[in-house]
This record gives sequence, C-alpha cells and structure tokens, in this order.
Amino acid sequence: MERHFDEELKILKERLLYASGIAQQMISDSVKSLTDRNEALIPEIYKKEDEINRLEIEIDDMAVKMMALHQPTAIDLRFLVGAIKINNEIERMGDMAVNICQAAAALIKQPPLKPLLDIPRMAEIAGEMVKDSLDAFVRQDAVLAKKVCERDDEVDDLKDQIFRELLTFMITDPNSIERAMDLILVSRHLERIGDHATNIGEEVIFMVKGQDIRHHFAEQEDKK
Amino acid sequence: MERHFDEELKILKERLLYASGIAQQMISDSVKSLTDRNEALIPEIYKKEDEINRLEIEIDDMAVKMMALHQPTAIDLRFLVGAIKINNEIERMGDMAVNICQAAAALIKQPPLKPLLDIPRMAEIAGEMVKDSLDAFVRQDAVLAKKVCERDDEVDDLKDQIFRELLTFMITDPNSIERAMDLILVSRHLERIGDHATNIGEEVIFMVKGQDIRHHFAEQEDKK
Repeated sequence: MERHFDEELKILKERLLYASGIAQQMISDSVKSLTDRNEALIPEIYKKEDEINRLEIEIDDMAVKMMALHQPTAIDLRFLVGAIKINNEIERMGDMAVNICQAAAALIKQPPLKPLLDIPRMAEIAGEMVKDSLDAFVRQDAVLAKKVCERDDEVDDLKDQIFRELLTFMITDPNSIERAMDLILVSRHLERIGDHATNIGEEVIFMVKGQDIRHHFAEQEDKK
Repeated sequence: MERHFDEELKILKERLLYASGIAQQMISDSVKSLTDRNEALIPEIYKKEDEINRLEIEIDDMAVKMMALHQPTAIDLRFLVGAIKINNEIERMGDMAVNICQAAAALIKQPPLKPLLDIPRMAEIAGEMVKDSLDAFVRQDAVLAKKVCERDDEVDDLKDQIFRELLTFMITDPNSIERAMDLILVSRHLERIGDHATNIGEEVIFMVKGQDIRHHFAEQEDKK
C-alpha cells in the first residue's frame, strides 16, 4: 500500500504542476492580448479556463480519494489538505486571467492610453511567483516559499505606482477615465494573482513548520 | 468512537458559525464606519481580524486532527474537507472587511461625495449571503445554497450600477476622482464577499450532489 500511495502522490504533484502551468500561460497570454492588442489570443484563454476548472475537480477528487483509501496521518495528511487548498488557489488565478481578458477586450477597441510597461512587468513577477510557489510546494521548500511571499511587496508597489500614474491621466483628461479604470482593474487582478501565490507560499511554510514542530516533538518523545 | 466524532463535528460546526458571525459583524461595521463617518468603529474591526485569523488556524487544525484520529470516509470526509475550504473563505471575507475599513478611513477625512445608499444595500445582501451560506453548509441544505449563488447577480448588478454612477461623477468633476475610486473599490470588496459566499454555496451543492450520486450508486449496488 505504501508504494501505491507514493505513486499516487507523484501523479497528484504532476497534475498540480500541470494545472499551475496552464494558469501561468493564461496570465501571460491575457496580458499579451492587451499589450499586443491581439484579440485572437482570447478564445484560447477561455478554453484553458474550462480545462483548469475540470482539473480542479479531478485533483480535488484524487486527493479526497487518497485520504479515504490510504488514511494517511501526520505529514502525508497535511500534504493532501495542502494540495486541496493550493488547487483552489490555482483555479482562482485562472479566474483572474479571464478578468484581465475581459478588460483587454474592452481596451483594445479604443486607442491606447499610454505605452504599457508596468503591467507586463507585474505579470512577469506574478507569473514567476506562481511557478515558484508550486515548486516550493512539491519540494516542500520553505526557503523558496518565503521568497515568494517577500516578492508580493514588489507586486503591490507596482500596483500603487500604476494607480498614481493613471490617476494623473484621469484628472488631466476626462476622456481617459474609462480606459484608466480598466487598466487599474487589470493591475488589481495581477495583484490578486500575486496574493494567491503568496497564499500558496504561506501554506507551504505552515506545512513545513508544522513538520518541524512535529519532528521536534517526536525527538523529545524519543529521549524520554 | 462514533459518538466522539459526532460531538467533535458539532463543535466544528459551532466554531465555523462563530467565525462567520465575526465576519458578518466586520462587514457590517466596516460599511457603517463609512456611512456614519465614524472612525471609532475601525480599531474593533482590526481586533476582530486577529480573532478570525486565530480561528482559521484553530478550525483547520481541528478538522485535520479529526481526519487523522477518526479516519472518516465518504460523507464525513467530504464534510471535513468542505469545512477546511469554507474556513478559508471566511478568513478572506475578514480581509475584505479590513480593505473596506482602509477605504473608509480615507473617505471620511474628506467631504462626502454623495449620499451612500447602494453600498449599504450591497453590504446588507452580502451579509445575508454569508449567513445563509454557512447555514446551508451546517445543515447540508442544497436548496438554500442554490439561493445564495443566485443572489450573487444582485450584488453584481449593484456593483455595475455604482460603477456607472461614479464614472459620471468622475467625468463631470475631476475633484471627485479619488473619492469615487475609493467608493468603487469598496463596492468591489463587497462584490468579492458575495463571491466568497457563492463559493461556499457551490461547495455545499457539490457536497450534497456528491452524496446523492453516492447514495444512488449504493442503491444500485444493493439491487444487484
């Protein structure tokens, strides 16, 4: 049974990495549709959303079945609970990418307001955070998880910078208000993607710290 | 052991209801601080956020311990997984209330932009959705859960209405832009609270439907 559990765990990790890869692609493509003013990218993103929604159910089901069948305890149980939570974060990142698409579709129908530099930069950082948070999870790497959480400030700073700049546009030219609002919303969706990656990072730290505490406790018990 | 599990389940449900009660209070007080222009309400909301964060860890831990100790299967296991997910949604509702507070603190330092009617109405509906979603969960009531999900449209419509109205303010008077932006953000935080309640509703429907499918399957097996 042990070997079977490990094999299933390997598949579960692979599926989570696969799902997060789709989310990363969605984030990058949704921002690319905006910066390249390319509406053709959008239908593919909606297709990927369907796939990520299907994967969420599949992964959730897989983790619950593993719990019921193998009745793991301690570290393995915590890992499966973590997988269920992280799976949920990935699905929501997909939702954010779809929101970005919707704003992009509205924006590219109008003349560009300004050259977009900060938003692709935000998307790049958020994408890296997503990748690193999943790597931290499958490897149970608390150091990498901590780095993910720390990068959230970079994303927040960019969001504030974008907000201030676009506010100036809005005050100077009322014609820019609707487009500026859409760009502000895009930056907020990217901020939330960073938040989801940070949630994953925190979960990993919590899991690894929990292991440490349990390890420490087990060592003390051994000495008795 | 059975009786012990049921007793623990009862406590778990009570803790979740307690946590969601705090979230409801936070939502209502954060909007009240804005409508009544009363900064004195804000520190209490931050205290409640600490409490809700502590409760999240406590409830999470309790559910995982119940899994490890009682090794439940089928319906009971699904319920515990659901409790962990819902617990997470409640904590995030608390975060949204804190975001509303922050916007309120900025807004009440400036003259009021307009009488606030839609925002308290949104907060009222969102609060009811939170209450109903938790009731649906503890009672495993899919009909009530479905009603919660349907009300999400009411919240979204109000959000769109608020957006359109405030956009007009912004275009007419550049001095109103910053305050209008803050009010739009408040409406988006309330929208997200509605989303969290809807997530809970969907989870309940998924759990109950899962039970039905399993029941149906078990009946078919019995007939063999």
